[in-house]
Amino acid sequence: MNIEEFRKRGYEVVDYIAKYYQELENFPTLSNVQPGYLSELLPSEAPSTPEDFDVIMKDFNDKIIPGITHWQSPNYFAYFPANSSFPSILGDMLSNMVNCIGFNWICSPACTELETIVMDWLAKMISLPERFLSASNGGGVIQGTASESVLVTLIAAREKKIRMHNSLNPDLLVPKFVAYCSDQTHSSVQKAAIILRIKMHVISSKNFSMDDSLLEETIKNDIKNGLVPIFVCSTIGTTSTGGIDKVEKIAGIAKKYKLWHHVDAAYAGSALVCPEFQYLLEGVENADSFSMNCHKWLLTNFDFSPLWIADRSQLIKALSINPAYLENNATSSGKVCVNERKGKVIDYRDWQIGLGRRFRSLKFWFVARCYGVSGLQTHIRKCIDLAKLFEHFINEDPLFEVAAERTFSLVCFRVKNLGDSEHKLLNDNINSCGVFLTHTVINNLYTLRLCVGSPWTEENHIHKVFEIIKQETKKIKKGQ
Amino acid sequence: MNIEEFRKRGYEVVDYIAKYYQELENFPTLSNVQPGYLSELLPSEAPSTPEDFDVIMKDFNDKIIPGITHWQSPNYFAYFPANSSFPSILGDMLSNMVNCIGFNWICSPACTELETIVMDWLAKMISLPERFLSASNGGGVIQGTASESVLVTLIAAREKKIRMHNSLNPDLLVPKFVAYCSDQTHSSVQKAAIILRIKMHVISSKNFSMDDSLLEETIKNDIKNGLVPIFVCSTIGTTSTGGIDKVEKIAGIAKKYKLWHHVDAAYAGSALVCPEFQYLLEGVENADSFSMNCHKWLLTNFDFSPLWIADRSQLIKALSINPAYLENNATSSGKVCVNERKGKVIDYRDWQIGLGRRFRSLKFWFVARCYGVSGLQTHIRKCIDLAKLFEHFINEDPLFEVAAERTFSLVCFRVKNLGDSEHKLLNDNINSCGVFLTHTVINNLYTLRLCVGSPWTEENHIHKVFEIIKQETKKIKKGQ
Repeated sequence: MNIEEFRKRGYEVVDYIAKYYQELENFPTLSNVQPGYLSELLPSEAPSTPEDFDVIMKDFNDKIIPGITHWQSPNYFAYFPANSSFPSILGDMLSNMVNCIGFNWICSPACTELETIVMDWLAKMISLPERFLSASNGGGVIQGTASESVLVTLIAAREKKIRMHNSLNPDLLVPKFVAYCSDQTHSSVQKAAIILRIKMHVISSKNFSMDDSLLEETIKNDIKNGLVPIFVCSTIGTTSTGGIDKVEKIAGIAKKYKLWHHVDAAYAGSALVCPEFQYLLEGVENADSFSMNCHKWLLTNFDFSPLWIADRSQLIKALSINPAYLENNATSSGKVCVNERKGKVIDYRDWQIGLGRRFRSLKFWFVARCYGVSGLQTHIRKCIDLAKLFEHFINEDPLFEVAAERTFSLVCFRVKNLGDSEHKLLNDNINSCGVFLTHTVINNLYTLRLCVGSPWTEENHIHKVFEIIKQETKKIKKGQ
Repeated sequence: MNIEEFRKRGYEVVDYIAKYYQELENFPTLSNVQPGYLSELLPSEAPSTPEDFDVIMKDFNDKIIPGITHWQSPNYFAYFPANSSFPSILGDMLSNMVNCIGFNWICSPACTELETIVMDWLAKMISLPERFLSASNGGGVIQGTASESVLVTLIAAREKKIRMHNSLNPDLLVPKFVAYCSDQTHSSVQKAAIILRIKMHVISSKNFSMDDSLLEETIKNDIKNGLVPIFVCSTIGTTSTGGIDKVEKIAGIAKKYKLWHHVDAAYAGSALVCPEFQYLLEGVENADSFSMNCHKWLLTNFDFSPLWIADRSQLIKALSINPAYLENNATSSGKVCVNERKGKVIDYRDWQIGLGRRFRSLKFWFVARCYGVSGLQTHIRKCIDLAKLFEHFINEDPLFEVAAERTFSLVCFRVKNLGDSEHKLLNDNINSCGVFLTHTVINNLYTLRLCVGSPWTEENHIHKVFEIIKQETKKIKKGQ
């Protein structure tokens, strides 16, 4: 494909995208294909010679689109949102144009420096304490997923604790390490502990918030039993219910017992662009790291998972490795300083698992400038208002009950006097009507979750989804 | 930005990309900005209100582009290539349009199924043994980077070995675990061991290939000393020189001592689309996993790092975690089978570190179909021919000497009778002439590396870069 052919096909794909968003509302949100559908439609080997672009686009339209669950649909209320936006798509096209690999500063100075700049922008937008800014000893880095964020912070916490105990044999020490999360913490935190084979003690929650007295009691008990507490994760906006941990209390306990305190705001972090939510950051000034996902609710395409760290040297010491083929003047000048004092250059490869990295800051730079902070606030507030409207419908209708207090744009609800298996059937039936909701389990009961997050969702979609839920509930009730 | 505004801006960005590739050759390949340049050009806070798209594009052009090191330039010969291609860019635009998060099958059946299909296509293209295909007990998955591939395989190897020793306390067993790589293995393998705190014994290489007798001797010795060997990584196409390990010999040793054998072909794996290189796969039929990077040399934009595994259940057992909010009918039906027998659905979240994942198979699907296997072969062979031409120039000129046997498209060379610091200066001077080469260290000597990989590089660029190298060498020689 030469440059002129690309221009022609590029316009066509832009038109296709425009048409997709025009028609998006009419697609069934949850794909209804059967497992294995695609292998029946596509050949089992790549073509030996080039195919025409029109044929490929036709296949995309006829064979791929039916197998898509439309996360951008105004009728998507499942899991958490995964916002796409036009400025983000355009910024990412330019990232693909450049396609630089930004592991070292010299690999593309703009790739590294724009990342530092937008991470500072974002930190200021959500009023993160100054110690997380790059001008301090901290700084932000874009990870692929919140799972990677928690994994690298757990590694940094482990290495920091090993250094604190430097006279001991780490092989004897590490098996004594223990980390803490709540029964509402995202599974990625437990997965990080599984990956590193670090014990994770799960603290029960009260009203969807970690029981901090129990946390302290458990820590004390663990120490008495010869364990070494190293890490605690608190959450602002849990996956199951949007629950909020008492960050300040947990920060106090973490400080007292010298634990690394990571704050996970993967979903709700986006809401912090609105000043009315920033009180939730109380205590974060004592945290060691903070993560959120702009690729969930802040109009930035996947993947874009910011992680801020209060003392970047902890991360760098834990994740640096310097083979000869990566040495260069800029890195040599920077290495010293990033570890010891304010640095000239950052090599983000030392802040993450992988070596290679995409120019991801571009898409958020486009988003932040095209929307402005005010535009991002409008988006968040609109979603929350729509969630409130849905909550209102649930509260006003005697058929239903809210199952957990709404905190942001997530409403957890149940049909009164309906069993688990009927709830499950109801969920399936609702999803076959063109909308998509998922569930969770609260107090051992199957509970429906409706999360508003798509920028395309308007009031009429909330009315519509509630009507569907009501209609399907009545059908099931009738069949009882 | 509404749909019509997006269409207009989309065309503009397509035009910008077309223009970039038209003019690419004229940019200095290595950016010459100074550290901190961008923070002087951009505000320290995000704008509070929306900015005009024209202003943002102008900033991109005037402020970002000068800070780009142009990995797509025909004059880029550094590190390894990071191919971009128009079909890949177009496919990724559609991925951004959909922006589905494919952690579970139901999250977008097409996202999961197309990944399985293209990973089978690719496996067949490079003649990977059948046990790595999805119809067997194996299968492929797209990781973000080769670092992640090696990390997840090392985790799977660790867990497999723990299960084999199931009567023991893992906390006492794991510290005895030891993995092996060579002094030419990529640093990501050592980084994975650092992350997991698993001992890594580095085996010396002979002629840039792991000394397999020494490997076996070390394993025997380690066992005698009470250690438990678990993993060995062999490489086809090392980063430093393009060296090739004797995969078959290492496979035999791995089998004998029950080690997980991972084959890393991050760079050279792409060359295996050409049948004339497939003899290098001898022994891979006994390997446990195999990885390569299409985002290096196979015309697919970052990130796209295929990993195949011979027994997928090993990976799934090591990385699964199943919270209530991710349960669904399809997953429940599939779980059993993926672990036990041929599965209905795959949930790729259990094959990787993170939970979220992009629809990455689309871009390779576009690449494979737009180029056909023959087009991919042409690309690889052209790069290798150009590298041969450069090697010829080096061999014919009495100023220079080849420092390691060329295997694929990478030529390592030195100026005869020139010290390390002069070589370093020479490298800097060459890079200030608009081209970009990096270096490595071979036998303790600073060695220049020239790797051909950009689809835009033609014979004239090889002539030009050699002329620059000669001219700058003569200048330095004169100054001696």
